[in-house]
Amino acid sequence: MPELRHDPIQKRWVIIASERGRRPDDFPRLEAPSTGGFCPFCEGNESKTPPEIAALGRHGRGPNSPGWQVRVVPNKFPALRIEGDLDRKGIGIHDRMNGVGAHEVIIETPDHELGMADMPVEDLKKVLWMYRERLIDLLRDFRFKYILIFKNYGAAAGASLSHPHTQIIATPVTPLTLAEELSAAREHYRYKERCLFCDVIEQEVESGERIVLANDRIVAIAPYASRFPFELFLAPRRHHHSFAEISDGMIHELALALKEALLRIKKCLNDPPFNFLIHTIPNVRVIPKRTAYWDTIEVDYHWHIEIMPRLTRIAGFEWGTGFYINPTAPEEAAKYLREVEL
Amino acid sequence: MPELRHDPIQKRWVIIASERGRRPDDFPRLEAPSTGGFCPFCEGNESKTPPEIAALGRHGRGPNSPGWQVRVVPNKFPALRIEGDLDRKGIGIHDRMNGVGAHEVIIETPDHELGMADMPVEDLKKVLWMYRERLIDLLRDFRFKYILIFKNYGAAAGASLSHPHTQIIATPVTPLTLAEELSAAREHYRYKERCLFCDVIEQEVESGERIVLANDRIVAIAPYASRFPFELFLAPRRHHHSFAEISDGMIHELALALKEALLRIKKCLNDPPFNFLIHTIPNVRVIPKRTAYWDTIEVDYHWHIEIMPRLTRIAGFEWGTGFYINPTAPEEAAKYLREVEL
Repeated sequence: MPELRHDPIQKRWVIIASERGRRPDDFPRLEAPSTGGFCPFCEGNESKTPPEIAALGRHGRGPNSPGWQVRVVPNKFPALRIEGDLDRKGIGIHDRMNGVGAHEVIIETPDHELGMADMPVEDLKKVLWMYRERLIDLLRDFRFKYILIFKNYGAAAGASLSHPHTQIIATPVTPLTLAEELSAAREHYRYKERCLFCDVIEQEVESGERIVLANDRIVAIAPYASRFPFELFLAPRRHHHSFAEISDGMIHELALALKEALLRIKKCLNDPPFNFLIHTIPNVRVIPKRTAYWDTIEVDYHWHIEIMPRLTRIAGFEWGTGFYINPTAPEEAAKYLREVEL
Repeated sequence: MPELRHDPIQKRWVIIASERGRRPDDFPRLEAPSTGGFCPFCEGNESKTPPEIAALGRHGRGPNSPGWQVRVVPNKFPALRIEGDLDRKGIGIHDRMNGVGAHEVIIETPDHELGMADMPVEDLKKVLWMYRERLIDLLRDFRFKYILIFKNYGAAAGASLSHPHTQIIATPVTPLTLAEELSAAREHYRYKERCLFCDVIEQEVESGERIVLANDRIVAIAPYASRFPFELFLAPRRHHHSFAEISDGMIHELALALKEALLRIKKCLNDPPFNFLIHTIPNVRVIPKRTAYWDTIEVDYHWHIEIMPRLTRIAGFEWGTGFYINPTAPEEAAKYLREVEL
């Protein structure tokens, strides 16, 4: 019998259709990775990107020259633009504002072939360190309500360049998904005086069934109501609301856990395309102190990373309803991922 | 400058990045249509599907034999099962219920090659008539809160068989997207004492900028805050809440409009994969009369059809935020679609 499961964080239902019984080998590769051709992100091609915003590892030499380890540039085709005012207004029943925001690319390594799963932990730490730096810097701009850090790996996951990179988009509105998570978390906090995410994590750690890996500070879970097969949720085990405020110690443990999670996915599912994204609190500097958000935001939200291998297609049913059909039970997914030999 | 637009119905923002300026020819074909091989939906292969639920046009001969015009069968690999109780319960912080529901396939024509855009209007009317029949029948089951009618056309849109068909899924919960639309519509009604959809349609008809086609009863609009390039919204021009209660006259006008809309999309965009889905009110028989839904449901919701050509990939940003980057302004899309020669 298929099962319906409810996600307490995003308040959505999912159909776990495990009778369809999809194991790791049952998913066709959605698309071959693109290779070859000129790459503007490779070392030596620094002049082919817009002027760099930040870089790590280049000692003494000037910007936009070789020798870097991590490099941040504006997106050449930005979805949102950094200049201008919002100019928010109504047009009859419609609402519009200017597309003000930021759209940056973090080039994770000079090595075109070095995927995040295979990166040495010390290198991955530099990438995470740069995530935090860019987040802190962008949060200073009062026009931005939210900053999303996300990665598309593989053409089927939306990556247009194969060189390892992450994107950052700062938006002038709080995105719907975040608003819903914040509201669910606040509701739970008011009812229980506990963090919703902490409660979920505690129950999952206790049961163990859906845990993929855990170290001192980070746990990776196949969520009970996973939308996608082999979806993962990585979060700090102890309550913490803001990715911008993580410590260097946390970055170390996160790098270890993230690398292991991505390596397990890569080996288990034959290097699939995937998306990952970081959810953290919105820009509290721009939230008026009187709003409902303000009073509890540090106690009721909990930053986390969602990793979504792209193994199935999203069809009409998903678009029309906002709920998902997942052919692999998360307990099974967790088991497969745990059993991968590294 | 890119523009942010807000959708008053789904309460989401979209980025209209028209500087990326994608015209109809700029979208690569996501995937070639699959052809060849055995088809269980073709005439003569009736024994290869589960026993039929309903059929049209077969005069005198028994079920599961040739001679039909439209045929309805259970999905061979259903996402939800018709038998059983819901058995809804909590597991600590999680919620689950049995995957009770219905999952049917409407085979639109015996002709394997006859896409909906090319179907004679009289044949398309039979398909729509069958949509209404199945909806009425499934609404009798008190376990079902919502019935979604949707079509995936082309492998990239999620179709696993190329023979023209539509799917119906009856779910035991109100899907998130519907709940959000209902709530937005109700909020607007309480504030204005008018239907939100009627207000949107009136403003669009008056401006004309985003109208693709209109007949006496139906209008097709490229929505102001379209998530996807060349997305369309078809709705009755006069207020009407339930697809299950449409008249034969409405079916006639809808068949004309739907055929024309699909034909314009086909010709303009080189026969792209697409999804379409019908949004109508939830099963009012199962809504307690005391709830907020009940008192205004007939005046505040407005059935409609969403058509979404699949021209771009959904990537990490969209999953992470619930808002979308659309590279084609809906005004441009409407203009291209209007100018297609039929």
